[in-house]
Amino acid sequence: MRLATVADPAGTTTAAVQVRDGWYALPYADLSVALRDAGWADAAADVVRAAEAGATALTGVAPTLLLPSPTKVICAGLNYSEHILEMGRELPEYPTLFAKFADTLTGPTDDIVVHEADALVDWEAELTVVIGSELSRGTREQAAAAIAGYTVANDVSLRDWQNRTIEFLQGKAFDRTTPVGPVLVTADEIDPKAGLEISCSVNGTVMQSGNTSTLVFDSTELVAYISQFTTLRPGDLILTGTPGGVGAGRSPQVFLRDGDLLTTTIEGIGSLENTYRHTPGEK
Amino acid sequence: MRLATVADPAGTTTAAVQVRDGWYALPYADLSVALRDAGWADAAADVVRAAEAGATALTGVAPTLLLPSPTKVICAGLNYSEHILEMGRELPEYPTLFAKFADTLTGPTDDIVVHEADALVDWEAELTVVIGSELSRGTREQAAAAIAGYTVANDVSLRDWQNRTIEFLQGKAFDRTTPVGPVLVTADEIDPKAGLEISCSVNGTVMQSGNTSTLVFDSTELVAYISQFTTLRPGDLILTGTPGGVGAGRSPQVFLRDGDLLTTTIEGIGSLENTYRHTPGEK
Repeated sequence: MRLATVADPAGTTTAAVQVRDGWYALPYADLSVALRDAGWADAAADVVRAAEAGATALTGVAPTLLLPSPTKVICAGLNYSEHILEMGRELPEYPTLFAKFADTLTGPTDDIVVHEADALVDWEAELTVVIGSELSRGTREQAAAAIAGYTVANDVSLRDWQNRTIEFLQGKAFDRTTPVGPVLVTADEIDPKAGLEISCSVNGTVMQSGNTSTLVFDSTELVAYISQFTTLRPGDLILTGTPGGVGAGRSPQVFLRDGDLLTTTIEGIGSLENTYRHTPGEK
Repeated sequence: MRLATVADPAGTTTAAVQVRDGWYALPYADLSVALRDAGWADAAADVVRAAEAGATALTGVAPTLLLPSPTKVICAGLNYSEHILEMGRELPEYPTLFAKFADTLTGPTDDIVVHEADALVDWEAELTVVIGSELSRGTREQAAAAIAGYTVANDVSLRDWQNRTIEFLQGKAFDRTTPVGPVLVTADEIDPKAGLEISCSVNGTVMQSGNTSTLVFDSTELVAYISQFTTLRPGDLILTGTPGGVGAGRSPQVFLRDGDLLTTTIEGIGSLENTYRHTPGEK
């Protein structure tokens, strides 16, 4: 199934399931609320059957912020071998992990607005795991069962802030700079370990191009590992790292400029389309 | 004022204000709920007046987890000069920041339970700022006004996990390993910048002893700095860093052993008293 939080022009949201080209409402205000109900999959299956029997699709709606209220957003850094090498680091024994906040996330077509005067704003296309059931100290098999599905994110990073100290957080957690979506594809329909093309382009020029089969730590390994120290809950997000081609790894380095269009795509899931807006000083 | 979340023997909680030796109930289920109501200070002042006029104190209650539902828990590392030097680092230009989760926190007298077989568990006594009103991209003056008050935390750290990668998170975010409390002392009654003694002892032996006047980045600087990238909200917590004397900085190194009593004290606020329980393998 392909699920999303969709919004109408007035901004009213609902969780919805996609059937052919139409969106059909689920009985939840958004997908975070849906995933916290253990019956979400049955409810969605009912709506799919009704849609196939001729129910009416929603009109004038589009995907918005996929998961507005995660309890945890955890990111793996340095998880594709070619990106690790371009950043000048060695292949790891353990995943490198840092956090973002619910406030860091934004919608699949929202502008990414940065107010810092001299910000060095870079892109990081990432396969993103969405948790479907609570997991604490789980095995890899339990981790696989706890994954609701997958979506796309761009771990947009202020490299100057990221590199001010040894901890990435401050360059990775600017409010509303990490687009997520447009849809959650359930784990029964997609297999990132078998290989999905992942790419990022700026104004149509491909900057990153990789394949999820080359992740050093795959989705189930990351979920199982993280669950050793903290409980994962429905609607939580795990960003799995980015392939080579980030702006800071290029020679010369390149960063986003005001008005640039950032397109982030994963095969079988979809694309984020976000415009970068640099508005120094503006509140 | 001295505020807390208190629990009765059945585990029912309420926000409360301390008047002399008694706890008086506020009309909120806990202090996180209280701080999200802009009228909390007036409500508390009313209860203080009633207590002074002879109202009945709560009986059989004790402080429990101070703030059960923060939206953000952000920690400064390397913020006391002597701790920076004992960890072999240089004085910083910018604060080093990382995150914990609401799930990382535990109560002021709760056991700290770690299941990892060979964990190297260390202590970090920390002055902790509690946010009282929303702040985004604030000045230092606005930051000072957004601080509700101060409490005590111990940023208990699994050094082996912390040092597996360059990012601290996984060693700092084991569920229910960071005790917080016992009370919030409002900012009008206490001035950490003027100097409060801070200490940590293990089984009565003092391991850390410092003074909050020697923080490299003080509370208002940290709050203003963090607000440049993310919105702080009522009930959010900023742990301001730890003074010298951690177990990993000693020669030879020392770490917590099963049954050790960890006492964390800040002058004018109070003490955390937590027993370390090492239970490898236990679910």
